[in-house]
Amino acid sequence: MNAPEYFSHEEKAHPFPMNRWWIAGFSWELKDQPLARKILGHAIVFFRTPNGQLAALEDRCCHKELPLSMGSIENTGLRCGYHGLLYNHAGQCIEIPGQTVIPSKACVRTYPFLERDQILWIWIGESPAHQPLDEPPAYPFHRDPAFEFGGECYHYDAPYQLIHDNLMDLSHLGYVHTKTIGGNPSVHMNARLNVSQDGDVVRVVRLMPGSQPPPTYTAAWPFKGLVDRWQEVEFHVSHVLVWSGAMDEGSGSFDDSNRVGFHMRGLHGVTPESESTTHYFWTIANNPQPGQSNVTQLVIDQTAATFLEDKWVIEAQWKNQQQFQERTTLNIHVDGGPNRARRVIERLSQKTTASALA
Amino acid sequence: MNAPEYFSHEEKAHPFPMNRWWIAGFSWELKDQPLARKILGHAIVFFRTPNGQLAALEDRCCHKELPLSMGSIENTGLRCGYHGLLYNHAGQCIEIPGQTVIPSKACVRTYPFLERDQILWIWIGESPAHQPLDEPPAYPFHRDPAFEFGGECYHYDAPYQLIHDNLMDLSHLGYVHTKTIGGNPSVHMNARLNVSQDGDVVRVVRLMPGSQPPPTYTAAWPFKGLVDRWQEVEFHVSHVLVWSGAMDEGSGSFDDSNRVGFHMRGLHGVTPESESTTHYFWTIANNPQPGQSNVTQLVIDQTAATFLEDKWVIEAQWKNQQQFQERTTLNIHVDGGPNRARRVIERLSQKTTASALA
Amino acid sequence: MNAPEYFSHEEKAHPFPMNRWWIAGFSWELKDQPLARKILGHAIVFFRTPNGQLAALEDRCCHKELPLSMGSIENTGLRCGYHGLLYNHAGQCIEIPGQTVIPSKACVRTYPFLERDQILWIWIGESPAHQPLDEPPAYPFHRDPAFEFGGECYHYDAPYQLIHDNLMDLSHLGYVHTKTIGGNPSVHMNARLNVSQDGDVVRVVRLMPGSQPPPTYTAAWPFKGLVDRWQEVEFHVSHVLVWSGAMDEGSGSFDDSNRVGFHMRGLHGVTPESESTTHYFWTIANNPQPGQSNVTQLVIDQTAATFLEDKWVIEAQWKNQQQFQERTTLNIHVDGGPNRARRVIERLSQKTTASALA
Repeated sequence: MNAPEYFSHEEKAHPFPMNRWWIAGFSWELKDQPLARKILGHAIVFFRTPNGQLAALEDRCCHKELPLSMGSIENTGLRCGYHGLLYNHAGQCIEIPGQTVIPSKACVRTYPFLERDQILWIWIGESPAHQPLDEPPAYPFHRDPAFEFGGECYHYDAPYQLIHDNLMDLSHLGYVHTKTIGGNPSVHMNARLNVSQDGDVVRVVRLMPGSQPPPTYTAAWPFKGLVDRWQEVEFHVSHVLVWSGAMDEGSGSFDDSNRVGFHMRGLHGVTPESESTTHYFWTIANNPQPGQSNVTQLVIDQTAATFLEDKWVIEAQWKNQQQFQERTTLNIHVDGGPNRARRVIERLSQKTTASALA
Repeated sequence: MNAPEYFSHEEKAHPFPMNRWWIAGFSWELKDQPLARKILGHAIVFFRTPNGQLAALEDRCCHKELPLSMGSIENTGLRCGYHGLLYNHAGQCIEIPGQTVIPSKACVRTYPFLERDQILWIWIGESPAHQPLDEPPAYPFHRDPAFEFGGECYHYDAPYQLIHDNLMDLSHLGYVHTKTIGGNPSVHMNARLNVSQDGDVVRVVRLMPGSQPPPTYTAAWPFKGLVDRWQEVEFHVSHVLVWSGAMDEGSGSFDDSNRVGFHMRGLHGVTPESESTTHYFWTIANNPQPGQSNVTQLVIDQTAATFLEDKWVIEAQWKNQQQFQERTTLNIHVDGGPNRARRVIERLSQKTTASALA
Repeated sequence: MNAPEYFSHEEKAHPFPMNRWWIAGFSWELKDQPLARKILGHAIVFFRTPNGQLAALEDRCCHKELPLSMGSIENTGLRCGYHGLLYNHAGQCIEIPGQTVIPSKACVRTYPFLERDQILWIWIGESPAHQPLDEPPAYPFHRDPAFEFGGECYHYDAPYQLIHDNLMDLSHLGYVHTKTIGGNPSVHMNARLNVSQDGDVVRVVRLMPGSQPPPTYTAAWPFKGLVDRWQEVEFHVSHVLVWSGAMDEGSGSFDDSNRVGFHMRGLHGVTPESESTTHYFWTIANNPQPGQSNVTQLVIDQTAATFLEDKWVIEAQWKNQQQFQERTTLNIHVDGGPNRARRVIERLSQKTTASALA
């Protein structure tokens, strides 16, 4: 086991919900080079050895503190690029060039790390003693044959909860995303809105029956005219699921989960990098119709552009919030969903900092 | 009226003369897009509606704090680019998409703001209760048919008083501006210098009879040989007026305000952006002679280059001053004008911070 | 003599060994323009007048604090680029344009400064009263006809002692410099290592008899096969001397200082710019054989590339060390040399801060 005095105690002050799985990336990011990424304030190197072993280690050689992510992957582990210390997937140093004895304290912290449905999940505990009791969730739309998907990782210079706010209130589509998934602002403002909560999961459903489909929708699907459009947003602490789509007006029921039409399934992994910066891991899956070639790429491209608009807005918002410190803000009708998500995070963050070792 | 709890109290600590008009820009800067600019530490959005209404609002939506300058101008005001809140020129929110009731506290701070002779003037009071009792000054050379002018806004990474120092002591022309308006250094060092003061206005007059005209002058005017050259600098708290020029030697009197020759009228709006950064709004007007085409553009271009030289020097000076902290400096003969201007600013800044609500 | 109240007292807090010569640059850097460089936290302007007089002055005009390095060199000194004050090599102001009397306090601090063997040396004392009692060392390989050399100045965003660590433990060659002077890692790890110390000088000798020559060596010298390779590193407080090379296996003795073969003589001036940044002045000299044209340039080019690899590693190391604060690190076998050098620096830094005026 790793020596306790080698661990950073910095994480205790982080105002994040700890002791849970967070998204750290996508499977296709781990190839022949190590990947450096900071998660909840922890600088971590991720890698996969040639035989498929996954590892997430503290990104710091215990000798001279070079990032291990500047090293190279070997069959048995990761070798530091300065003086050649070799670490296995468990963080133990297994070779020190120039000496035969390897002290037991020659090791680095490791993190529980695995992949499921092409998503890389990392467990960040309050301390190394807080180990996972559950598994990260499945995500079927990365393997459902009816769907095709693509995605990316965006880096935000903004705290993660501003991204929650954005995803939990899609009324901004009519002002921020007019060219893609937005469309007429009044459509969004007249949406039938329902907010509900079940434990730490918050759901916002917005229904826009008989509305004009926005540009991305008409480009992707042969709608006949007006559509019955839906957006179902499901907040989880580590990620937000957005099911949106539309069907020809009157062709189905919003209550039928197998309804016809154009479906988009968005995964939004919102992982704090630090208190003021965030990793935003997103994929978008859609159900292309036979004969409709290139629709998936169109959906991915327009989604990528749409999410860059969000990034532009949210980073400007954050910059302005820092400028106008300690000021009250106004709550409006559409803030119901975002505010519930905020209360979940607040409760879990307090719980983390107050909790004793399990 | 705006709700007091919504105002920033930050400005009280700013060491600037408050309760007065400052230059915020030029009329031609307000077109179909809002303009963001920070004035004396206040982040403000400026705009003109299609019907000509001017407005200066706090640049922060009271809902989610996006800069309003990222929004769009409509007939009745400015609409936020995130969730569509619409503000009129008085800072009142007049539309909240998705809800019918608009709470009275849905508003942002406004600032007295108007244009005169193509100059945009803003009043920065200690608090919103400190409203203007006077008007901003006229500036005739922006509308005198005998003059043509042009100008720009430069941003300085330096405190505004270093620009005062520069303008109030033109002996630097011989070392900094050798290629344009400088000329022989000894001409400047032998100038007849007179410094006087009337309340908060400081005047520095430098006369250089029988001197060699500098490059910009000979390019702009058909001088016969040596010239009688003058520089009359008038410091006001918010701006500095520089009347410079030359006439053929012996062709007129420095006492005659309607004297012949080449005249340049410089407006220098020196407006603090923050304690360490400054907006420098300048125009240069000259009296072109019939048949002398392109002279105005030449004067503008060479002035623009000259003022970039000042910016280069002053920003380097500021960087060095930060490096060598808490050090005494040497006063020399030419510092008389700059030091008087500094004492005016010092007195008014103290007065501001000490004053009670009028 | 300079007036004491004009001196910065900042340097006392600097954790550097004071009262000694440090390398400030190379002779070829001083041409017709002044050179600005910060040494041990002191911002200094270096220049050479047309008649060859060298000077190192505080880089700050005592009038308005413009860097004097923005001024121009004249026959009698350096003239400030703002208001034209002229300083001689002793830091005395000898001309103030516009006034006849020059106050005695119109001066700036100067530093003992001279060149020897194309190296510029500056003396940084605890105070101006601490003047040099010795001379800077000679460096024969900059004038030995058997050698040719070249070099450069690299700027490091890292503290100087990390560069000492790097130079005093060349086992990193096998991991960092595989393409140039590294070669097989196991060669370095099996090197015969000897560390010794004489006062403030630490020596590390690494011998690799019967080893494969690395790429730069084979490109520079017609070795027949395996070589007897050596690295002799000599740490001095202000610089590190690295004598490395190789001879055909068995063709000579490591004990013979005039041994045959390929010799490289590296000078490494490691001068703190600040507590966290460093100037790295290096030259590499080699003994080209008759008929081997271009070898010197090849050695210089490959050395330049090699030292950029070190810079890349060390700056990344420093960035990571700042991220993982207050953490213990592991000592391994090869750290013997670096750790001795660190103890010398530690002892001399304490001595400096504790010492009274001599």
